[in-house]
Amino acid sequence: MAVNLPPASGLLAVPGVELASLAAGIRYHNRKDLVLIRLAAGTQVAGVFTRNAFCAAPVLLARRHLARDQGIRALLINSGNANAGTGQAGLSAAEQCCAQVAQTLDLMPEAVLPMSTGVIGQALPLAPFAASMVPLRESLAADRWLDAAQAIMTTDTVAKGVSKQIQLEGKTVTITGIAKGAGMIRPDMATMLAFVATDAALDKAGVQALLDAAVAVSFNAITVDGDTSTNDACVLAATGQAGTGVIKSGSVAYEALGQALIEVCQHLAQACVRDAEGASRFIAIQVSGARSLAEARQVAYCVAHSPLVKTAAFAGDPNWGRILAAVGRSGIDDLDVSCIDLLLDDVALLRGGEPDPDYTEARGSAVAAQAEFTIRIALGRGAVSTTIWTCDFSYDYVKINAEYRT
Amino acid sequence: MAVNLPPASGLLAVPGVELASLAAGIRYHNRKDLVLIRLAAGTQVAGVFTRNAFCAAPVLLARRHLARDQGIRALLINSGNANAGTGQAGLSAAEQCCAQVAQTLDLMPEAVLPMSTGVIGQALPLAPFAASMVPLRESLAADRWLDAAQAIMTTDTVAKGVSKQIQLEGKTVTITGIAKGAGMIRPDMATMLAFVATDAALDKAGVQALLDAAVAVSFNAITVDGDTSTNDACVLAATGQAGTGVIKSGSVAYEALGQALIEVCQHLAQACVRDAEGASRFIAIQVSGARSLAEARQVAYCVAHSPLVKTAAFAGDPNWGRILAAVGRSGIDDLDVSCIDLLLDDVALLRGGEPDPDYTEARGSAVAAQAEFTIRIALGRGAVSTTIWTCDFSYDYVKINAEYRT
Repeated sequence: MAVNLPPASGLLAVPGVELASLAAGIRYHNRKDLVLIRLAAGTQVAGVFTRNAFCAAPVLLARRHLARDQGIRALLINSGNANAGTGQAGLSAAEQCCAQVAQTLDLMPEAVLPMSTGVIGQALPLAPFAASMVPLRESLAADRWLDAAQAIMTTDTVAKGVSKQIQLEGKTVTITGIAKGAGMIRPDMATMLAFVATDAALDKAGVQALLDAAVAVSFNAITVDGDTSTNDACVLAATGQAGTGVIKSGSVAYEALGQALIEVCQHLAQACVRDAEGASRFIAIQVSGARSLAEARQVAYCVAHSPLVKTAAFAGDPNWGRILAAVGRSGIDDLDVSCIDLLLDDVALLRGGEPDPDYTEARGSAVAAQAEFTIRIALGRGAVSTTIWTCDFSYDYVKINAEYRT
Repeated sequence: MAVNLPPASGLLAVPGVELASLAAGIRYHNRKDLVLIRLAAGTQVAGVFTRNAFCAAPVLLARRHLARDQGIRALLINSGNANAGTGQAGLSAAEQCCAQVAQTLDLMPEAVLPMSTGVIGQALPLAPFAASMVPLRESLAADRWLDAAQAIMTTDTVAKGVSKQIQLEGKTVTITGIAKGAGMIRPDMATMLAFVATDAALDKAGVQALLDAAVAVSFNAITVDGDTSTNDACVLAATGQAGTGVIKSGSVAYEALGQALIEVCQHLAQACVRDAEGASRFIAIQVSGARSLAEARQVAYCVAHSPLVKTAAFAGDPNWGRILAAVGRSGIDDLDVSCIDLLLDDVALLRGGEPDPDYTEARGSAVAAQAEFTIRIALGRGAVSTTIWTCDFSYDYVKINAEYRT
């Protein structure tokens, strides 16, 4: 049951983007599992992909198609099968999927980005794709975002999407994004697929720069279980149909658009954690007083990945000894424990490395019993801060992941 | 329920070592929780301790006492309370415990090594220690190893200990060791306490060198959950009472003693994994073809810590996609996936990065259904190999760690 996360609603159409979804029977029957997205001519597209060395065939192909720089006009996203660990046959299957889309929409195959999510290591069946192309084309429409958000779900329990509108240069600009992901999630990136579109006009450099900046503080600032997927991908498309001029780096409009994009991506990224496999709590980990961002993230992720911290969180147990032990093993050179403050929300547990005299178990438990709280770690050795988001570790996480393939 | 691990039995006395245990009521009543060990004059002692920056008060004090190099004559080990995260008050408590032992056995306080394990962040009550000193002294005996192994248990379900005898220089030399540890376990070291004694004669450099070598391939080659404790300690005592001369580095006897010590430490370390919290399977991870030991360990631990790999193992699911994903995200530079072989025991899953044509789900499942198996990862880029040991991740791990303090 997702933590404070209602299903996506009110998703706004983005001029220049049409979507269609259907149940192709890739892995399950009677469950939407295939999405086709058509982008208007002139759309600028950027992507960020997993850094896992074993990246999946669709990731390899999507990177290649983006690198050709001849324009992306369509995305084909399937759930149910990740087409990962499938070797040369998998790459060939991804190529054939792109060719089918290209033929159906009268495009070059290189204009199609493939994305897959689901089980790893099984051959991708091609027949469901071939049979779906014409029905997908015939149902393309601008208002099918929610259907698409539902169709890309795997172990997700809630469809994830959000829209935001801002005024730029006197025009209303829309950003709508959808995402899936609930396990095998950590930075760089997650078993996570996200597609975000805006009708703002951006050049190629701008769309990549804004995507990179937003991903750094959203999809690359979450973790469920520390497992980086083979298939992660986040794609941003800017159709340019809002009527603005091309929004250039350094302008007020560029900053405003970048901020709105961060908000959309943070909503989607946090939604993945809120809906994480078995999650019952949504936990922010805020590390301050670090000497560098790398150091702050190292401490934050060490705490976030600790099974002992996560199981204590599941129990609503303010077990600060486990947090402290995780900070202590995070590998920071010359960590001076006598400089460290540790708080749960506003309740101080440690001040200067010593137990806070005002701390009581009752005060700690009151924070830890909440569905959402923040673990605040002040290292006292620098000026850099960061925040990441994670969840607890429950019986249901084990259940979901022990039973996923059986 | 421990995996193929009967309770310790047949533990042999080590001349020069006397032990006593009792139920002091440190955390629970009617449960043995305090051990006193007296070492004969002339015993050489070495220790290896946690590298966690937040190390516990007894670790700080034990390191200080060993560094003074004036001889260690006693150990005081308690379970139920780790005396960690307790600040200056905790250090003072550890000092008072050593002083009590010193007074009782007519030693200097610096001749006493304190060791504590149990809950973190609670003040160590001193009254149970004071009341126990005389009864402990009066029950010191050479044949109380099993009692001691039982008294240091926390969430352990099985008392862990082993003895081994070898012939050196025409004399029978005994090595006996005990250990505790079942969670918060990973290299450097574990929530793990171990005490190993031999009646072989070693000089100070020799006892430390042999301990370091044995720990590297035993206690520092296991992981349960990746959490490094604040209290880990492994102490080796060489009483010299077997009648051998001092065994010098480079001699045949030194090599034989070193090998026997490795076997004792590996038994104890593997026992901790076999009895890991909630464990139902004991898994070796063997990485070969690495360019360095650091690289081999990086891959092995990344797989061993993956919650997805561990939950699949719990289910007996040969989910090689998750193993592959963990190898791929382990951070090895320029990893060429086309060189990688992956096997479960002798069943090949991947050869040269491609699915093995002879692999069937039935063959993989037959291996993964066993209580013990080996995940073999050949990187194909160098000549270095290593093996570590871990376990699966079950409902009971969550249950044990969610309920430990409540």
